[in-house]
Parts: sequence; structure tokens; C-alpha cells
Amino acid sequence: MNTLHVEIPGRRYPIFIGTGLLDQPSLLEPYIKGKQVLVVSNETVAPFYIERLQSQLGQYEVHRIILADGEQYKNIDTLNTIFDALLETPCDRDVTLIALGGGVVGDITGFAAACYQRGVAYIQVPTTLLAQVDSSVGGKTAVNHRLGKNMIGAFYQPRCVIADTGALSTLADRELGAGLAEVIKYGLIRDIEFFEWLEEHLDQILRRDNDALVYAIERSCQNKADIVSQDEHEAGIRAILNLGHTFGHAIETGMGYGVWLHGEAVAVGMVMAADLSRRSGWLSESKFRRVETLIHRAGLPTTAPSEMTEPRFLDLMAVDKKVHAGQLRLILLQDIGKAVISDDFDQTLLKQTLNRVSG
Amino acid sequence: MNTLHVEIPGRRYPIFIGTGLLDQPSLLEPYIKGKQVLVVSNETVAPFYIERLQSQLGQYEVHRIILADGEQYKNIDTLNTIFDALLETPCDRDVTLIALGGGVVGDITGFAAACYQRGVAYIQVPTTLLAQVDSSVGGKTAVNHRLGKNMIGAFYQPRCVIADTGALSTLADRELGAGLAEVIKYGLIRDIEFFEWLEEHLDQILRRDNDALVYAIERSCQNKADIVSQDEHEAGIRAILNLGHTFGHAIETGMGYGVWLHGEAVAVGMVMAADLSRRSGWLSESKFRRVETLIHRAGLPTTAPSEMTEPRFLDLMAVDKKVHAGQLRLILLQDIGKAVISDDFDQTLLKQTLNRVSG
Repeated sequence: MNTLHVEIPGRRYPIFIGTGLLDQPSLLEPYIKGKQVLVVSNETVAPFYIERLQSQLGQYEVHRIILADGEQYKNIDTLNTIFDALLETPCDRDVTLIALGGGVVGDITGFAAACYQRGVAYIQVPTTLLAQVDSSVGGKTAVNHRLGKNMIGAFYQPRCVIADTGALSTLADRELGAGLAEVIKYGLIRDIEFFEWLEEHLDQILRRDNDALVYAIERSCQNKADIVSQDEHEAGIRAILNLGHTFGHAIETGMGYGVWLHGEAVAVGMVMAADLSRRSGWLSESKFRRVETLIHRAGLPTTAPSEMTEPRFLDLMAVDKKVHAGQLRLILLQDIGKAVISDDFDQTLLKQTLNRVSG
Repeated sequence: MNTLHVEIPGRRYPIFIGTGLLDQPSLLEPYIKGKQVLVVSNETVAPFYIERLQSQLGQYEVHRIILADGEQYKNIDTLNTIFDALLETPCDRDVTLIALGGGVVGDITGFAAACYQRGVAYIQVPTTLLAQVDSSVGGKTAVNHRLGKNMIGAFYQPRCVIADTGALSTLADRELGAGLAEVIKYGLIRDIEFFEWLEEHLDQILRRDNDALVYAIERSCQNKADIVSQDEHEAGIRAILNLGHTFGHAIETGMGYGVWLHGEAVAVGMVMAADLSRRSGWLSESKFRRVETLIHRAGLPTTAPSEMTEPRFLDLMAVDKKVHAGQLRLILLQDIGKAVISDDFDQTLLKQTLNRVSG
């Protein structure tokens, strides 16, 4: 097991990464606050892991709520079902919520914990690659609104993150690929060595070689923890974690939540960001090709669906959280391993990127 | 105009108190973040004050949303209408929300600001006595759940509070009385001199003598600011501000939100807390009578409605935020001006208090 830490003002919490962590009861215990625990999971994950998790919690009063699986359920209605469960029990202010699942479960459980009685404890137990490398770390919680992704939420940190890489054995290939989009992202924004390692080891990851997976997860989490520790509330540098997300969120919202996986939309978004960087003269043609190729090799899409026309993109991107004083800000690449936050891009080039079909 | 400050770690914000502040544009300006403003008000307050407020905001892009008036609308559905308005505009992360109204408007607007894009700026412009002396100060925001009052919310501080005492001229008598409950509370929990001043000057306040009102508001806000500055997140001492609220919230929830005003329910709750303190041998009979008398003189109820039976109270109080490890904690009085947080009260005496009809 490897332990990393997120260090933010007044708080420090661990990320435990390793195989078989779901079977280590001593790991969870110090992070549970009171006597009551509510495990939040979904109908796909729960059959595999909820009993194993719950068997470690013998000394607690454990409740559970199983959500439907999919981005289309990450909304205020589902959030309400968690509040209902908490109040019907009733759970007090010392309750600890445990998010057992992927990014949707983690985001909604974290936001429920942020709001219930104005804030209770929660623990992230991510079971997908995407959640293990990205969404479970850093305290961004949210639900979607029909007009925009992650528009309602809070910065609210978990007490710990427990990433059992063993859980990836039951992950669908499509979900593994979606997680790889965020893994590749760390290489692109600030870690060229990792990008090069991924170019060399992608096949091992796709074969689910445990050592390769563990290394990729640890290195991703270290990158994430470093950035979050510098800028918890995204006043500055943390925004580079959103590489590809402005385009990606537009695709997710535009196509209807759940049609594209978040990682798939981000994959296309990253290629679009690389494309705009290339058109802006920042990224060479050969480096753009390396980006596109790695994403393609991960089994991810590299072009937006035809439904996403230029005006549709522009409409949806206008509600992005990175819009500032009416001006869209994008995360672009000055190089592989070097992202910048920019509102200084040519609108004509942006339109070319939005209209790009391939190549 | 008098200016007080709330000082919390990493933040300091002013409370401006005075007559005619709604007509001072220079007051608002420094606290508005970007170019967009969303004024949230209700159908009772807006006709009196929204044009006056908006006339100060000529240089901004101002939007408005008018809510229905009443505690029964302080819920997630109404919150959603604010999110819809923000996203349909669309408003970006630099938007500033202004809460123009009483406690309901302030609580729901503050919570909307806490959640929209994970947190945007907001300003409190309280127009009721209750909001000016209590709910607009200190950053407690929330909406109600059918099973419990203020159960979904956040600690989220405004950028400033602007309390124009001139707004109280249009306040209904019943609303003025409700606000007085919270004013009297400060005397009871930590300021016996203020309690004695209120015993002497209550008639002037009820006649809406401006000097008396301004003094009562300032002294209340000073007490509130002192406590919040010590304990923003209610880890300890801040809980004494909840004197009467556990009983009061049970009445509000039990009778249906909006049937009793919050201040009316708190008034009864404070008499109940004083009654339990008397039965516990902490408060003399004569001091209990002084508490009850002052509350009665303010035009407030002093006994719970007959619908609130002992089992109903116990059920509803079980979901209170002050329940800890299954044990109810109450704010009780060791003296007038001296509140304590206690879970060490006799259950038999509590039941006598819950069954008390009068006297």
C-alpha cells in the first residue's frame, strides 16, 4: 500500500492506494466520526463490493442507499433521495457517509455530505479508474443541472480516500478507457515523463497489469494532490486540471448526461484543446499527433459527435465555470507537459477547432 | 451609520446599520464582484424596495428573481428556481447575489450562492428585524426538508450585511414581534444588561422608536458577531445562539412551515428552555417569570400549540442538529445572561416541560 497526502490550509488527509484495501478494516476506522455510517453506492458496484465493505463495519450502525448507475442520475433529485434516507433514519451530525463507486457516486455523496446539517464527514472509496485517479481526490463535489454540468456543488474535502486497485478487475473496458483519459491528462498538463511512460506502457495498462495500473494511479494521484494542495478552491493553477473539460462538459450536456462517459468527452476535449494549441502555433504538428495517438490507443474517441455543431458548442460553453467577465477561458497546451490558462486565443481558430471533424 | 465586523479565519466583513442605507449606492459597490448581479427578493418586500436598490446598480447587469413569501417556500424546489435563473441568464462565477428580504430570502439566497458553481459572492440586505439582528449575520444558510428545519445548508459568509432600519417601517407587527424573539435571546444567553435594557425600553421598540430600534439591532449584531467570530462552524460556543431553537424548530416543522413564524416558535422554545432550567433548579421562579413576561409583552406566544404533544416533540427533536451520539443536547439557562450547552438534564423534567400548558 502507498499513502499520499492532500495538504490544504487547516487540513491534511491521506489517499491510500493498493490492492485488497477493501478487506482492511483498520484502514477505515480512524476516519469514521460517530457511530452511524451511510454507505452510498450504485446498482452496478454494490453487488460486488458493498458486503465486503460492510463486513468491516461491524461495530457501527450501518445504513445503505443504492443509486441508479449513470451520469444522468447525478442531479438534485437523486441528491434528495440521500437527504431523505439521512433524515428518515435519522442520522445525526456525527454520521459518516462513505461513497462506494465511481465519479458520480463520489461527487453526489460528497455534495450530500457538504450540505447535510451544513456539513458531515465523508470518505471516498472509489471503485473506477476515473474516480481513483481524479474525482475522489481534491474535494470537488457537485450535481449536474440540465443547463450545465457540475453547476451545483461545493468544495468539500473527504476525511480520506481508499483506492483499492483490486476493484478495477470488475470494471468494464469502456470505463477503464474513460479513466485513462484523466490519467493521460496529468501527463499533458504537467508531467511529460509520465506522458512518455504512458506511451510505453499503455498496452500493459489495457491488459490490466496490476503493477502498471498501480503506478499510473499513484502518479496521477500525486499530480492531483500537488495541485490541490497549492490551490484548493481553484483561484488559479488548479484550473489546469480542467484541460479538455470545457469542450467535454459541452459534449456531455449537449448529448444528454450518460450518453457519453465523462472520460470519453474529456478525451475529445483534450484533443480539441491540443488542436487549438496547434492552430495557435504553440504545439507542433508532431506533438499534436502524439497526443491524438495516445488517446486513440486508449480506445477513446478523438472527435466530437456530429450533433455538436459550432453554435451548440458555443451556447453550452457560455455557462462554463471558467467564463470570466463574458470571456471564455480555456486550458491550452504550450507543450506536452505544460498547460496554461488562456483567454487569449483567436476566435477564428477556436471556430476551426469546433468544426474539426478529424485530422 | 454604525459599522460592526465579523472576523473569521481568513475573512472579515462589515455589518452596516443605519437609516436610509438602501439609498447609498457607494455602500454596495465595493462588495459586488463582477458585472452581473442577481437580486433575490420576495413578493412582499420587492414592491417596497427592489426599485430603490436596483437604482443604485446602474453600472451592473442586474437580474432579479421574486420568490413567494413564507417559510413554506424555503425548500429545494425554490432553490432550484434560483439555479434555473442563474443558468438561463447565464450568470458566470463572478456574479454577485443580493438577498433583499427577511430570513427566508437570506437563508435560501446564501445557500444558492454557496452552491452555484461551487460558490459565488453574495450580499445580505435584510429588511426584517429578525434578519437584521440574526439570520443575515454569521453565514448560516439553509433550506428546510419536510422532516426537519434547516437540514440542508452550508456555512457560507456574505461579503457584507446592509441593515437599513428604515425598512422596518413597512414591517407587519407580527414580523416585528418575531424579530424581537431573537433580540431577547441575546439578552438571555450572554448579555443581562441588554435584557434589563429591553425590560425598560420594550414599549419604545414596539412603537418603532427609531433610536431604540437602532440600539437594539446594533447590540444584537454585536453579540452575534462576537460569537460567530469565536466559532464560525459551531464546534462549541456558537450553539448557545440556538437557545429555544430545538423546541422551536420542532414546532415549525410539526405545525407545517409557515404556520408559525420562526420567531414565534423560538419565543415558545425559549420559554420552554427557561422552564426546564427552572425545573432543573438553575433558574429561580422569579427569573423565569421575567423571561416569560418580557416575551409575552413583545406580543409573542409563550406556550406550544396543543397539537405539539410530548411524543410529537420527541420525534421531531430527534432529527435536531444538536443531537450527538443519540443524545439530545439543549441550550439551557443557568441565569438570565448565562446560557449553557447541556445534555445533562433529567428526562422526566424534560417531559414535564414538553407537557406544560401554561404557568
